[in-house]
Amino acid sequence: MNFIEALDAAWKKNDSLLCVGLDPDPKRFPARLANDSNAIFSFCAEIVDATADLVCSFKPQIAHFAAHRAETQLENLISHIHLNYPDIPVILDAKRGDIESTAEHYAAEAFVRYAADAVTLNPYLGGDSILPYLAYPGKGIVLLCRTSNPGSGDLQLLNVGGMKLYEAVAHLTVAEWNATGQCALVVGATCPTEIGRVREIVGDLPLLIPGVGAQGGDIRAILHAGRASSGTGLIINSSRAILYADRENPAEGARNAARKTRDEINRCR
Amino acid sequence: MNFIEALDAAWKKNDSLLCVGLDPDPKRFPARLANDSNAIFSFCAEIVDATADLVCSFKPQIAHFAAHRAETQLENLISHIHLNYPDIPVILDAKRGDIESTAEHYAAEAFVRYAADAVTLNPYLGGDSILPYLAYPGKGIVLLCRTSNPGSGDLQLLNVGGMKLYEAVAHLTVAEWNATGQCALVVGATCPTEIGRVREIVGDLPLLIPGVGAQGGDIRAILHAGRASSGTGLIINSSRAILYADRENPAEGARNAARKTRDEINRCR
Repeated sequence: MNFIEALDAAWKKNDSLLCVGLDPDPKRFPARLANDSNAIFSFCAEIVDATADLVCSFKPQIAHFAAHRAETQLENLISHIHLNYPDIPVILDAKRGDIESTAEHYAAEAFVRYAADAVTLNPYLGGDSILPYLAYPGKGIVLLCRTSNPGSGDLQLLNVGGMKLYEAVAHLTVAEWNATGQCALVVGATCPTEIGRVREIVGDLPLLIPGVGAQGGDIRAILHAGRASSGTGLIINSSRAILYADRENPAEGARNAARKTRDEINRCR
Repeated sequence: MNFIEALDAAWKKNDSLLCVGLDPDPKRFPARLANDSNAIFSFCAEIVDATADLVCSFKPQIAHFAAHRAETQLENLISHIHLNYPDIPVILDAKRGDIESTAEHYAAEAFVRYAADAVTLNPYLGGDSILPYLAYPGKGIVLLCRTSNPGSGDLQLLNVGGMKLYEAVAHLTVAEWNATGQCALVVGATCPTEIGRVREIVGDLPLLIPGVGAQGGDIRAILHAGRASSGTGLIINSSRAILYADRENPAEGARNAARKTRDEINRCR
């Protein structure tokens, strides 16, 4: 099963469009992990075990591991997910973007070393910069289109011949980059109008929507603007609001927050 | 001394605008390193030792380490450069780009873990995505403007209100992002006309020029279009043409190729 098929199966099996983002921050871990040299893995694995039946995917964010020399813990975490929850695809959130000869190494990092099912990429370098990832037939790539941060408009909202730059990325994706059916796009939860614009352009292409929870995206508006004709088509990511819902009992806090968010999403579908 | 000052001092001390890119590829290493578990460090350290008096900076490209689980070797390599050649700044080529809360972790990765003097960044997420890097006062950031790959025009050459997107990035950099004087820009060697356009926009801001050597950029055209009023202002990067000039004697091959490239650059200044 390729990434898009696995995602579709997980949407149905768990009746969930929720993706839990794994952004470990040791300063927010429970006190009992203070002396655990494997604390980043332990914390994330607890979250995964507590939420795996409530999600359509997990999205580990690589900087949170790299800043702490925790690459091995990230490898072990993704391996833990594949072994115990083989139906749940893993999106490595790395936002890589480089020339083709270098992208080959980043693709090996994401798909061979970490065995992720998909990776997030930055489109600024254009079509040839994504080819090395597409050379892995079962894998997915999730391209930044419109991001959720305040400064994202600096480039993404510039007018390029009658449309915005983020719309041009959506057009390029469906017209050229998605020829092998491996693409999805990132559109921030904080801009539901633009989720709707991207949905119009890309048909049923999956959209990864970060920014629900800590960043404040409105679930009803997101679903209204962004769901595909099937009622799915969205990977709605929440990270901090799930991971740190209960500091001393992260697993219980995460399960409650994930169930609540999944159910809220489902009420709006 | 901050990054820009260190770069200026290295330009003068070594009379060189050449940057050697450290893109280790074990498939191209000499046979004697075949069983060296530390081969990536060993190879790069040989190149560094052979060229340190001929360059203005070193630029390790992180994917080439990450794909081989060689983060520790990258830490040791940068530490080797700082210890033995404290006058030569190190640019970590990582092309990161993410929202502010994540960028804090990438900045810690680049500046605390790896102790790089500067890091390359992707501007697609806009101004707030670079703030966490600027919070390290002595450090530099080198933003992608116009890259050297064939597909770079897909976005970078789109027309945005009377100029191209890469020109808009150059304008944003001088008008807003360089308020603390920490910025430089990437402009590919393969587009000398556009190097000239960026130079007109940014005044004496340093430009990192990748694409000389294996990618075929024309040195005379680059210097003519891109040198600053001081005759410096350029960080002209060559990676593969230096590293793999002589397969069995990489240090000797690198020294000869680096001297030849530096001298060719200097003849055109």
